This record gives sequence, structure tokens and C-alpha cells, in this order.
Amino acid sequence: MNYRMLLYLLSVILLLEAALLLIPTAVGLVYGEPPMPFLITIGVLIVISLPGVIQKPKNTKIYAKEGFVTVAASWLLMSAFGALPFALGGAIPNYIDAFFETCSGFSTTGASILRVIEGLPKGMLFWRSFTHWIGGMGVLVFMLAILPQGGNAIYLLRAEVPGPTKGKLVPKLRHTAIILYAIYIVLTLTEVIALLIAGLPLYDSLVTSFGTAGTGGFSVLNNSIAGYNNPAAEWIIAVFMLIFGINFNLFFLILIGKWRSALKSEELHVYLLLALVSTVIVCIQTYNISTNLEHCIRTSFFQTASIISTSGFSTTDFDVWPALTKSLLIFLMIVGSCAGYTAGGVKVSRIIIVFKNTIREIRHMLHPRSVNTVRMDGETVPEETVRSAVNYIALYIAVLITSVLIVSIDGFSFESNFSGVMACLNNIGPGFGKVGPAGNYADYSVFSKIILSFDMLFGRLEIMPMIILLSPVTWRKK
Amino acid sequence: MNYRMLLYLLSVILLLEAALLLIPTAVGLVYGEPPMPFLITIGVLIVISLPGVIQKPKNTKIYAKEGFVTVAASWLLMSAFGALPFALGGAIPNYIDAFFETCSGFSTTGASILRVIEGLPKGMLFWRSFTHWIGGMGVLVFMLAILPQGGNAIYLLRAEVPGPTKGKLVPKLRHTAIILYAIYIVLTLTEVIALLIAGLPLYDSLVTSFGTAGTGGFSVLNNSIAGYNNPAAEWIIAVFMLIFGINFNLFFLILIGKWRSALKSEELHVYLLLALVSTVIVCIQTYNISTNLEHCIRTSFFQTASIISTSGFSTTDFDVWPALTKSLLIFLMIVGSCAGYTAGGVKVSRIIIVFKNTIREIRHMLHPRSVNTVRMDGETVPEETVRSAVNYIALYIAVLITSVLIVSIDGFSFESNFSGVMACLNNIGPGFGKVGPAGNYADYSVFSKIILSFDMLFGRLEIMPMIILLSPVTWRKK
Repeated sequence: MNYRMLLYLLSVILLLEAALLLIPTAVGLVYGEPPMPFLITIGVLIVISLPGVIQKPKNTKIYAKEGFVTVAASWLLMSAFGALPFALGGAIPNYIDAFFETCSGFSTTGASILRVIEGLPKGMLFWRSFTHWIGGMGVLVFMLAILPQGGNAIYLLRAEVPGPTKGKLVPKLRHTAIILYAIYIVLTLTEVIALLIAGLPLYDSLVTSFGTAGTGGFSVLNNSIAGYNNPAAEWIIAVFMLIFGINFNLFFLILIGKWRSALKSEELHVYLLLALVSTVIVCIQTYNISTNLEHCIRTSFFQTASIISTSGFSTTDFDVWPALTKSLLIFLMIVGSCAGYTAGGVKVSRIIIVFKNTIREIRHMLHPRSVNTVRMDGETVPEETVRSAVNYIALYIAVLITSVLIVSIDGFSFESNFSGVMACLNNIGPGFGKVGPAGNYADYSVFSKIILSFDMLFGRLEIMPMIILLSPVTWRKK
Repeated sequence: MNYRMLLYLLSVILLLEAALLLIPTAVGLVYGEPPMPFLITIGVLIVISLPGVIQKPKNTKIYAKEGFVTVAASWLLMSAFGALPFALGGAIPNYIDAFFETCSGFSTTGASILRVIEGLPKGMLFWRSFTHWIGGMGVLVFMLAILPQGGNAIYLLRAEVPGPTKGKLVPKLRHTAIILYAIYIVLTLTEVIALLIAGLPLYDSLVTSFGTAGTGGFSVLNNSIAGYNNPAAEWIIAVFMLIFGINFNLFFLILIGKWRSALKSEELHVYLLLALVSTVIVCIQTYNISTNLEHCIRTSFFQTASIISTSGFSTTDFDVWPALTKSLLIFLMIVGSCAGYTAGGVKVSRIIIVFKNTIREIRHMLHPRSVNTVRMDGETVPEETVRSAVNYIALYIAVLITSVLIVSIDGFSFESNFSGVMACLNNIGPGFGKVGPAGNYADYSVFSKIILSFDMLFGRLEIMPMIILLSPVTWRKK
């Protein structure tokens, strides 16, 4: 383990966080709010990280292990320090609650312990939503975009970017990172402008767009998007949630004119098909409790897009929806959206690979001598990718079961515990029952909140980096 | 596909069922009950199956495909015809309900649609419990024990016997089958005698032992084992449930004096450790609602043994237990018991393999050039076995999710639907909520009952044979 380089990278990340914290500080000042909670945090971050960055390490070589550890540790540290302003400013007096909320922000989950959101300082709520935007594209992708890191930085990207295939778009890693952030920024700004046109105030347009872009789901209103009572805004947000759940590599392909091959993506087809079919089923099931057809379609589409993109915004209390709809939403939570950058869940492409692999296994059982490969988008998927996709499912279930068991100690209903863990692990936000859109995670014990916070990071980083960070094997000397 | 041989094997199986039906007919006669429902069924079975067995096919060669199809089709047909006496005799007037109950019997699930059990004809309830005993060791294993089937019969055993490793005990397949049934019969008789000593009537001792041996869980009392109000019997049944959840190959090893290597089995260790730890946790959680310490330990041990062995007997309404206990029981449902013959669930050994494979994957990610194998009981597990164990998990989840979605259409609670499907797919029997120990599956729609019936067979046959039977690819001409 290259400890010196690890320290350097983590220090750079924390300095970046200090810089990013200047933005909510400025927003707070515009609204006449005291800047001290932010300034103290920025000071702490600078004091802690300066020693590590003063001198760049001589040996900058890192490998897979350092990549995983750096990514996992930096997300954990960013959440730990990012929680300070909430705790210091009194918006969330309990530090563990603040940590939960910040993990939820960076991991783009959107699960909240806040019983009342409206009335909190504007700067604080801006920071809360801004963590979604930072976490969406990834902190290390951001670092790679602004700082050249040499040839080994691919290990950082591999460890941070979700999904079974982690291709570089262009040969130079830094260019990839810059292109990704450029697409991200342009799409976010488009949504901001659309929401302004729909009549939302600038502040609300900004924070809502941050939540949409990162597929997070924090809102500044108690009733989430329902609070705006603005059908046009609901349509805009629903469409953008669906867009931000798509693999950004496809936007890149469209950007360079290869829109044909972008539109051929099997993952995109399955993703859109799932969204369409689910919308129709939800619509049929909820027609009786809707005001009219437009309301029914809008709400069904919004909630489906919100869950499949793992955002978690809501325009209605879907906890009171019929059983099939709830089961369907829980299923969509697991599926999640497309691989690449912002979204949570198991990922559509991974499910396609596992499904095709199962078909292959059945063929193999019937004709033991036949040799088949798994193909996607017209190409053979490497066996290594297939194996790790299938293994991911096993790992995912292990984390799911362990978490549900631990969280059950608090004694709430199975539906709340199960859907709560699912909503955190898949980076959705709201679940059902106690943690439904009308509820929150406030009543869980400190211990459960820590487990759920870790679940959110497990989900965002696709489990492995966190396990490697926490595994004693990683830290054992040879 | 060797259709002629398939027809022959299925006809033999159905003739065997006709012969087995003579036993409940006799029991009914002892209690002065009309034998017609049984006799008609026996007549139908003979008429249908005679043409297929009159002449043995010239070409008796079968391969993997025929093995899977024969096994899946014979379980389906046995359930379809085994349901006739219930429907004809009026014990379960609705045929779909009778089919559900019989699938539940043969698959050793023990899920029931009966609201009231006491008062039904003794012969009928005997048949109901006897299906557990037949299904426990397997119908085709039984056929292999009494009829020699030539060298290709290994494909039948492979398709029917649950668990990741399907070894023959002795070179001659028929001897293996005979040894297995001998162990099975001796253990069952031991339980019968123990229950007689504990004071249960002969009839109850027999049917309860059938339910224990097959890890089924049908009882002849409305309140299951709680109805006997007999602590000694509860201890006996609990211990035997645990015993029947163990891989029968271990009993064989003990029988031939190799008890050292039997006791070294990692699967056995994990199985017993899980049972012990779970009992302790349940005991701590339910101490407040127990009469005294013995009652607390007995009930906790009984319920843990019942779930981990996938039996499903109950001595208390565990639906009212605390949340952690319920989550733990649902987790144990998934784990199931040891590989080999009677039990359901994913199987402890498969989970050990998947777990060790995950550890290996983590090692591989940290040290990409290292080569590791998965080892169990001191031996290397073949990669083929590892791969199919991991794939089984993916297949299992696909069936689970699809079933929960379909069953949710009926509109019952998520807890009922999820635990109900779990209880059927893992061959447990009772779940929580509506389908808890105090409830039943009667209120589900016909469509849901068929899905749940298939889930039980999917679970008992470990999914693949049923999928191959139902897959159009299997029946397509080359």
C-alpha cells in the first residue's frame, strides 16, 4: 500500500471539499445567514489536509488496492466533514443525524432524518442539495477533471464509477472526466432554465436540479415536489430524472455524432421499456384514486421515473398505493438505472448480463458440450465481466440481509426495515411504511442510522471499495 | 428427446403413485371411511399409465435433458393426480385448492389452504402427510431403489436431488437409493416410537413423523404441534426436524464407520451453528412473552429448527414475535438446510460456496494476478460447481421477484406476499401476516395459488428442472 500517495489523494479531496463549501457559504450570505458553521468547517478541512498536499509524493504509483481504498475513504471522509456545518449551525444538532443526512446527500440517496425541512437556513439546504450534485458524477471524477493524476488514475475511476463495464471514453483520462462534467453541467443548467420557465423561483430551480442531476431526491419542501403544486414542473423533473438515469457514455456518443450506436444500446432499451411498462401498470392500478387521466399519467410517470432513476422525489404518498404497485416499485428499486456515474441500484446492464448468463447456463445444462458466450450490444461480454456481475448479486444480497437483520433490532415493521434498507442501499431515499414519502428515518436508533449510512455508501460505490476499505486483509502487512 | 422413454418413466411413476395410494385407502378403511375417492384415483392412474409400461422401450438411453424433463413432469403429474382424492372426497372441494395442497405436500412445503383441519377424514389427512414423506426423499430416488434403470439413471438423480454437489454414495446407483431409503425409514420409525413414548396416539405419531421426515410441516391439528400441549413431544419433533435437515450422505458415512469425516463437514458445522445462534437470539427476544425459561428455550429451539430445516411446524404464533426475530426467521428461510434429499431453501453448502467465492473475488480484485480456488471440507470445489451455485442465486431471485409481483395483484400486504412466496419457494409452509402460523393461503386468488404451487415445486427441484420443462427451447425440434 502506497500510504504516502493515499494521504496525498485524500488531502486533495478534502481541500476540494473546502473549496466547494464556499458556494453554500456565499448563498447563505445572500440570505443574510451567519457563515460561521461553514467557515469553521472550511478551516478544519484546510488545517487537516494542508500537510498532506504541501509536497507531492515521489512515488505516485497506485494500483487496484489503493484505488478502492482511496475512493471509499474519500467518500467516508467527505461525508464525515460535510456533516459539520449542519451540526455546528444547529440545523441538525445531532452529529450522527447530520452524518446520515450527508452520506445520503453524497451517495445521491435522498433519505432524510429531517421531520421538518421548510424553515431551515437557505445556505444549509443549498449545501444539502449540492452534495447530491457533487456525489452524482463522483468526487474523484471531479478531481481527475481539474488535476492531472498520471497514468494510474484509471484505478480511481474504476473504483468509483458504477456499473459492470467501466470504459474510458477517450484515451486521455482527464479529457474523459472533463467531457463528463461538461455534459453534466449543460444538462443541469437546461433543467434549471426549464424549471424557471415553469415558474419555480431560482433557488428552488437550482436545488431541485441538483437533486435531479445526481438522482438524489432531497427537496427543500416538506412534501417534496408535491409542495410546488406545479404540473409543468413535475413533467420537467420526471423527464430529467429519466435522462439523468441514462449512462453518460451514451450522451458522449451522441455528442460526437455517433447517435446511431447510442440509440442501439440494449441497456437503454430495457431501461426505457421498464419505465414505460411500469408507468402503465401503476397508472391502471392508481386510476381510481386519481383526479383525472392527466393527473394519473403524470403521477405514475413521475413516481416510476423517480424510483427507476433512483432519485426518490415524490409528488404523492405512494405508501398508500395498491400492493402490486408497491411490489413493483420495490422491484424497480433493485433494478436501478443504467450503469455509469449518477445512479444507484443493481443497474440495468448488470441485470441484462446476469439474465443472459442464466439463459446460457440453461443451454449448457441441456447441451453440456456446447460453448456459448454472453453478448450485449453486438459484442461478446468478457467472462470476467459476467462473473463479476453475477458475484455482485451475491454480495448485494449479503449486505441486504445483514443490514435488514441489524436494523430490525429497533423493532419497526418488516416492511419499513426491508424497504428502508432497500431505499438506502439502492440510493433511492424514501421506502414504505415508517420511511415512506410521508415519513422519515428520524426514529431509527443511532446504530441503525450508522448502518443505513454505510448502506448508502455501499450502494453508491457498488460495495467492493467499502468492503476492501473495511477488510483487515487490506491492512495486513505482507 | 427420447419421448418413448420419457413416457415409460412417467407411466412407472404414476403406477407407483397408484400403489402408494393403497396405504391411505387402508387407513381410511380402518376408520370406516368410504374408500371411493382413493379407488377412483387409483383406477384413473392405472388406466392412464398402463399403456406406457406394457412394453419397455428398446432405446433406454437418456441424457441431461430427459433427466430434467422426467423429474419436473413427474412431480407435476404426481401432484395433479394426488390432488384427486381430496377433490373427489370433498375434503377440499375446489380442485385448484386440492392441487395447491398436494404440491405443498410432495414438495415438503406444508403451506395449506385449509381453514379447519380437524374433523377431516383420517385417510385424507394420512395421504396429505404421507405426500411429505414420499416427497422428502424423492419419487425418482424411490423408483431407482425398487427398479433398476440402467446406467443413465444418474441424470434422474442429478435432476431430483437438491444441493450443489450430487455425489453417488456407492458405485451402483440402485444401492445408493436403497441405502438412502433404509436410513430414511429407520429414522422415521425412531421418531414414531419416541412420539409414542411421549404419549402421542399412533395415528398422530405417524403423520407427524411423516411431516418431520420430509421436512414438510402438515399437521392434523388446527394449531399444529401446539395443539398437543406436550412439551416432550415438542422436544422430540424439534430434534428430529434438525436431524432430517442434515445431508443424508453424512448418515451414510456414519453408518459405514466414517463418522470422523462426517463430523468434519463444514456444512454441518455452519448449519448447527446457525441453529444455535438463532435459538439464542430468538430466546433473548421472546423471553418476556414466555411462561418460563424452559418454555422460552423450547419454543425458540422448536421454531428455529422448524424454519432452518424448512419444516414449518409451529408451537406458537411466531407472527406476533418481535421484528428482529421475524427478520431472522425470514433469513433462515432463505438459507434453508443442508444439501441432499429432504430439505428446501438455498442450502447451507451453496451459501458457503458463494461466500467463499466472494472472498476469493475480493482477493482477486486486490491482487489481480493471484490464482485461488474455493475449498470446502479440505477439497477444491470444481469451478463448474462454484459457477452454478452463484448462478442459482440469480435464478432464485428472478423467480422470487416475479412471483411476488404476480401474487401482489391480489392486494394483500407486502409482508404477506413476500413471506408467503418465500415460505413456498423455500418449502417452509407458514410465512407472516395473512399466511402466518395462525393464517393460511385460502384467500389468495386461483391464479396466485397456481403460481405459489409452482413456486413450491421450483423450490423442491431447485428451479432448473421446472424451467427446462416449461421452456419452449426444450421442445423445439432441431
